[in-house]
Amino acid sequence: MSTDTTERMRIVTRSAGAGELFQLFRDGRPRTRTELATTTGHARSTITSRLEALLSSGLIAPVGEASSTGGRPSTSFAFNPSSRVVLAVDLGATHARLGLTDLAGRVLAGSEHAINISDGPDAVLSWVAEIGRDLLDEAGRDLADLMCIGAGLPGPVEHSTGHPINPPIMPGWDGVDVPGILTGHLGVPAFVDNDVNLMALGEHRHAWPEKTDLLFVKVATGIGAGLILDGQLRRGAQGAAGDIGHISPDNELTTPCRCGNIGCLEAVAGGGALAAELREQGVDATTSSDVVALARSGNLPARHAVRSAGRLIGTVLASCVSMVNPSLIVVGGVLAESGDHLIAGIREVVYQRSLPLATQHLRIVTSRTGAAAGILGASMLAVDEMLSVEAVDALAG
Amino acid sequence: MSTDTTERMRIVTRSAGAGELFQLFRDGRPRTRTELATTTGHARSTITSRLEALLSSGLIAPVGEASSTGGRPSTSFAFNPSSRVVLAVDLGATHARLGLTDLAGRVLAGSEHAINISDGPDAVLSWVAEIGRDLLDEAGRDLADLMCIGAGLPGPVEHSTGHPINPPIMPGWDGVDVPGILTGHLGVPAFVDNDVNLMALGEHRHAWPEKTDLLFVKVATGIGAGLILDGQLRRGAQGAAGDIGHISPDNELTTPCRCGNIGCLEAVAGGGALAAELREQGVDATTSSDVVALARSGNLPARHAVRSAGRLIGTVLASCVSMVNPSLIVVGGVLAESGDHLIAGIREVVYQRSLPLATQHLRIVTSRTGAAAGILGASMLAVDEMLSVEAVDALAG
Repeated sequence: MSTDTTERMRIVTRSAGAGELFQLFRDGRPRTRTELATTTGHARSTITSRLEALLSSGLIAPVGEASSTGGRPSTSFAFNPSSRVVLAVDLGATHARLGLTDLAGRVLAGSEHAINISDGPDAVLSWVAEIGRDLLDEAGRDLADLMCIGAGLPGPVEHSTGHPINPPIMPGWDGVDVPGILTGHLGVPAFVDNDVNLMALGEHRHAWPEKTDLLFVKVATGIGAGLILDGQLRRGAQGAAGDIGHISPDNELTTPCRCGNIGCLEAVAGGGALAAELREQGVDATTSSDVVALARSGNLPARHAVRSAGRLIGTVLASCVSMVNPSLIVVGGVLAESGDHLIAGIREVVYQRSLPLATQHLRIVTSRTGAAAGILGASMLAVDEMLSVEAVDALAG
Repeated sequence: MSTDTTERMRIVTRSAGAGELFQLFRDGRPRTRTELATTTGHARSTITSRLEALLSSGLIAPVGEASSTGGRPSTSFAFNPSSRVVLAVDLGATHARLGLTDLAGRVLAGSEHAINISDGPDAVLSWVAEIGRDLLDEAGRDLADLMCIGAGLPGPVEHSTGHPINPPIMPGWDGVDVPGILTGHLGVPAFVDNDVNLMALGEHRHAWPEKTDLLFVKVATGIGAGLILDGQLRRGAQGAAGDIGHISPDNELTTPCRCGNIGCLEAVAGGGALAAELREQGVDATTSSDVVALARSGNLPARHAVRSAGRLIGTVLASCVSMVNPSLIVVGGVLAESGDHLIAGIREVVYQRSLPLATQHLRIVTSRTGAAAGILGASMLAVDEMLSVEAVDALAG
């Protein structure tokens, strides 16, 4: 073996250990060198050199002295989530939320904007970078503090590349290297996923971390779901898992859908469908938000429409419950804000239609993280990638 | 720290390392001490003591000399899958298959029997133990060689305990400690799961190990599915994931199902439903096997019934495809043997109804492992549990 190879091997081995050691700290608990040596079974000298690499990366910081049974007090070390920041981006068709978070997902600054996703990737993503710089200023942080970017898009995204694939409501975005463009603007790695996947991730980690099997359903103009099984987001083979908006709840339905098929859930129970239904009854409604406002204000046709939509969504979710057996269904998206009418319709059908074994411990609830779900999830996605064993090895190497 | 604690810690640490080291060998490739030290970054002395523990357990054996660039030749070590055997059990309502396999899932002996699951757990499980002993004899192995038992049951099984929960066709089995009873008979750990989950596992590992997202559908008297996502079997919160037999493919259907609901997939497309439909047309058919034999022999009503069943199953699978985005659907169970009629009906509806992104790389095929899927999966389940990091630590400790 040449000296070069041996030297490379030594470096790889040292930094490989740093990433592994770092994972122990992600629960936030401080640990001493002795504890780390005991937990890992590694020699103290190994622990010391790996800790040094992590300290120099800033990810780990000393946190005062641990109590000791006498003698010299031992220093404890802990994850330092404020060492770096993350730009979290949640892009919708006509609306965007951006946030700057620390590495634990705490939002340090944030803003909301009306946008038009069909302006295309060049315009939208350079605007995102601009707002990102503003948020850094607002939070009093430098561009050098930015570790990574996480972004959600309102369409299917190929997980391995972060590229949108045939997104129906994003003209000009098909196959575009969104992570590459964002990295070009801000000089840090970027990670991109479908918006509903990120909402599921944000809601799961922030509100229900103890649940291992959870289905997050977004009901807005579009309808989609994010699937957590065995504690992790499951995206399926092409990243299209959870795409329930184009399942038909009833073979008799013939309403045309923007996807080209007929009778899709989204075409009969999405916000646009409900607004159209209300207009036919002479009620003034254009957007999902109009429908929500009407239902909340006591408009009976609106309440009836939302409840019926809940039943149609419930029919599809009953199949999903049989298929994946979640212990929790979380309903989010703007239509979830229309009081209890949506969720009442969903519960009615799911509990009637699914097998007792699958529903006896099943809860169906409204989202706790609400409109913030998307940016919380975007931050988590990026942080998980950047703080993986291999990525920390590289940072500490 | 007391000497006792220190000593216990040393032992835990040593054996912990053995389990971890062993995982490297599961791919079957032999490795030298030097390779192991390089791969793990551990000192040669650590590798040597962990290897000794694995050699004494019999799981690892020396496999001759590795080629060397001169000097003393180095010994290689490899996983020794024939060191121990596994009893694999696939119980159906009226039929059982048992097999003795090595730790790599090679079947060393096997047998098939007519049984009656409603004889209850005491009778059935003591009979299983008896056949298990016969198979050991047949393969020329001792009871001491038996490492563990894996068993599939034709009903829902709680994954954490291995107990059947409200199994509809297994009177007397509800909540019974099946693993405990099997262990009582044969003195080794036993692992129990739903039969379709085990068929999915067997088919995946033996025939499609490179596919990460796969749906296995069993079509027989009952209909059920097993779900592989990100390379692992996903069971959901109560172990009921994949229970698609009680999803209704059409809201208009009113056929009563044995589950108490109406219009379930199993009640309209299961083997019993098809036999009943044929009898109404004056065709002599009682069981799923009768339907298969008729379809294979060219009986047109039977072929028509199987194709229609395929369409109904396809309607439900189209929703599953949207929900979990598999890249492969494998159709197994006895009705899959009725020529191409079943799968043709399934393909017809799935490709018509699902989104292009989810179907562009989707294949729908007939099971390759056929009737052996269940025992192959039962063996894998048990071996995976017994050869996990923690379990090997215990064996080698």
